[in-house]
Amino acid sequence: MQYAVRGPIVTRSLELEKELQSGEKKNFQQVVKCNIGDCHATGQKPITFFRQVIALCSYPPLLDDSKFPEDAKNRARSILAGCAGGSVGSYSISTGVVSIRERISEYIKRRDGIPTNHTNIFLSNGASEAIKAVLLLLSSSQSGSNRVGVMIPTPQYPLYSATLSEYNVYQINYYLDEDNNWDLDIADMERALAESKENCKPRALVVINPGNPTGQVLSRKSMEDIIRFVKRHGLVLLADEVYQFNVYHPEITPWTSFKRVLHDMGPDYADSVELASFMSASKGYMGECGFRGGYCELTNFDPDVQAQLFKYLSARLCPAVLGQVMIGLICDPPRPSEPSYDLYICQRDSVLADLKEKAQLTTGTLNGLEGVTCNAVQGAMYAFPQIRLPSKAVAVAKEKGMEPDFFYCLSLLEEKGICFVPGSGFGQKPGTYHFRTTILPSIPVMRRVMADLEDFHKAFLAKYSI
Amino acid sequence: MQYAVRGPIVTRSLELEKELQSGEKKNFQQVVKCNIGDCHATGQKPITFFRQVIALCSYPPLLDDSKFPEDAKNRARSILAGCAGGSVGSYSISTGVVSIRERISEYIKRRDGIPTNHTNIFLSNGASEAIKAVLLLLSSSQSGSNRVGVMIPTPQYPLYSATLSEYNVYQINYYLDEDNNWDLDIADMERALAESKENCKPRALVVINPGNPTGQVLSRKSMEDIIRFVKRHGLVLLADEVYQFNVYHPEITPWTSFKRVLHDMGPDYADSVELASFMSASKGYMGECGFRGGYCELTNFDPDVQAQLFKYLSARLCPAVLGQVMIGLICDPPRPSEPSYDLYICQRDSVLADLKEKAQLTTGTLNGLEGVTCNAVQGAMYAFPQIRLPSKAVAVAKEKGMEPDFFYCLSLLEEKGICFVPGSGFGQKPGTYHFRTTILPSIPVMRRVMADLEDFHKAFLAKYSI
Repeated sequence: MQYAVRGPIVTRSLELEKELQSGEKKNFQQVVKCNIGDCHATGQKPITFFRQVIALCSYPPLLDDSKFPEDAKNRARSILAGCAGGSVGSYSISTGVVSIRERISEYIKRRDGIPTNHTNIFLSNGASEAIKAVLLLLSSSQSGSNRVGVMIPTPQYPLYSATLSEYNVYQINYYLDEDNNWDLDIADMERALAESKENCKPRALVVINPGNPTGQVLSRKSMEDIIRFVKRHGLVLLADEVYQFNVYHPEITPWTSFKRVLHDMGPDYADSVELASFMSASKGYMGECGFRGGYCELTNFDPDVQAQLFKYLSARLCPAVLGQVMIGLICDPPRPSEPSYDLYICQRDSVLADLKEKAQLTTGTLNGLEGVTCNAVQGAMYAFPQIRLPSKAVAVAKEKGMEPDFFYCLSLLEEKGICFVPGSGFGQKPGTYHFRTTILPSIPVMRRVMADLEDFHKAFLAKYSI
Repeated sequence: MQYAVRGPIVTRSLELEKELQSGEKKNFQQVVKCNIGDCHATGQKPITFFRQVIALCSYPPLLDDSKFPEDAKNRARSILAGCAGGSVGSYSISTGVVSIRERISEYIKRRDGIPTNHTNIFLSNGASEAIKAVLLLLSSSQSGSNRVGVMIPTPQYPLYSATLSEYNVYQINYYLDEDNNWDLDIADMERALAESKENCKPRALVVINPGNPTGQVLSRKSMEDIIRFVKRHGLVLLADEVYQFNVYHPEITPWTSFKRVLHDMGPDYADSVELASFMSASKGYMGECGFRGGYCELTNFDPDVQAQLFKYLSARLCPAVLGQVMIGLICDPPRPSEPSYDLYICQRDSVLADLKEKAQLTTGTLNGLEGVTCNAVQGAMYAFPQIRLPSKAVAVAKEKGMEPDFFYCLSLLEEKGICFVPGSGFGQKPGTYHFRTTILPSIPVMRRVMADLEDFHKAFLAKYSI
């Protein structure tokens, strides 16, 4: 099992930091970590309102403190009333605090304009735990050589390949179409599915929208095609929608939930396609990764299957309660009439505006480099450019027993202190090379990263093109 | 997979609560939940110092507030300095924040008087996650019919049976000796191990000390016998030590860590027996279940195996950071020279004194009931009495398709609103019946529970003895 965003390049970056601390001289003063979507680690500040409510829930004597706004206090009182014994130190039920799930249910209803029910929602330690639980559920019917198969995109977020490997589920790879802005390619999905059938019984399809590591936002037409595909083949649709707030050109490429598109396709689809949608507190404009908040909404799941999943969840007792509080607040932020509203909007929009600017800065620089092409970052927090490497660089890498893009990223790290993740960690078409960079460091740092990358890239090409 | 502490009796108790809320008349005004070790749910108050530090870490502007004591502020500053970007909203490394693991390492050193190293400690979402991760690691060598076996006590905490079933690991049951205060019985362990060998390759032994659901504290001699047993058979020792603060008669039955006993047995044992010890923020005097804080310390694990475990942990990114902060604080509470010390000691000792009194009250009442015997609650938070049921009650239960002790507990719930867990949920010798009750409700509530139980028990015997 490999987990690239925490892999050997990252280990080396930690060593480099220690070497810098111990006074070793390098070409750079500090390591810039563009390997992981960890917003606060790059200096992004938390949303004041969310943290005020967390502090009030953690230490309720603050409810008497006039320095806290009334809306934050009201939220905290309402949350504590939903916790056993009025304490965030008690367990919740396994699926999460009911009143928090109700707030999430109301958010989904506002978002999609479709009635929803909190009993189809369960909370989790980050979206990762929910994704793993649903994949375990789907694999529970397999035995011995009767393997279940799950379709995942290439490139993909390594949680999927790692989890399928852990549960011995057959991984069915379909390619995203890089020439078509990483759109899904139904013909390739049909090919992958047909080829898989001698090895497994296909059970589900994973779609990440907005894409990770690829940053595309799917068109409604693509989403409809996918829904028709899963309906045709009797697959469960797993929609990783954790970047639903990270959409930078909603006027051109708006984001729509799979639940909404499913609903709009009429009862033939809306009442039958099994859909699990995942959301996280870790991304968006809030980036509260450390709280491990997340939820999953199930649509059209068989009640017995859903009950089996919820029973499985009871063995981990409950997700961290303050993580539950965080994802609940994200789904129920200050309202226009409330005292915290203006500050909330200002903080939220400032983060999103910066991300939009960094998305443009990054793709602009990358597309200006010789042999590099990068699709627009329409959403999420990553650019995933293709790099055409000189054959000599490929040969040197292979001599060293490294993937060529790993060699490129490692060289960049050693020379400039910039930590990217090689495309081989996410999967890519054979013979193509990529890397993933986040767009999270502050604008001045991101400018420096891009300038350093430009220097490095030119020197790298010069060195290996002779 | 059954998970008794969250099973059908608990589901029925939630229904009863709703019926009461909707105005239905019952013999009782409220349901008393004695089914789960959820301290704050029963009204126990959090330790002020811990919650102050959590609030300060969550909302750092409070660091300028003169209402918070300096030691709480210093702890918060030091914790934030160990978090990437100075925020509890960033991911930590997979094994947990280094400075928190260092504090835990110092606690273990103070406790056992043995040097220790934070690189052998990893943090987890409650002890449950750590236990599951280690069991998964131990099972990773199995394939097809080559099953790994793990020895677990009967009775046991159902996390173990549920997890072994999930990972398809062979469960080797050994009986605790009820006639000998739930001590371990090496002869029965030898029997269980020998019998298992045609079905599996035994790999590890689980011991829970203080015991859950059984409440015993193991003697040093028993611990030495266990260590010799695992050494003789090449087993990994998994020591569930989450109740290490819940010891009510340390002058008679002191608690010692397995690590300490192992060390005292000399290098033949100390340098070779593989030991994993688990600790939690959810129990003890603090009972912070909702934070899902926990740690595991590994001793004598092969470095490659340990590296494999830590790599596996990277797929869940990190445990909830405020849960990490909580378990760190529990291992580094206020010191005698610090301003919060007196209040901390007062709060801690008050909870522990109440638990001690409730342990005595509970076992006293139980042993006074006809046909009921209960070993002393030396530690943990539970009493696990044996109930001898009239044969007519057993027959009626079987007619209803219920385990007899389930029938007893369900009748008690319906008539008195008291929620216990039947012994069948933990495992027991065939033909014996038990239940588990926590000792967590406040002293007045616990007195009422015991009085109601006495009434019920007499009426139950009268009804089924004719």
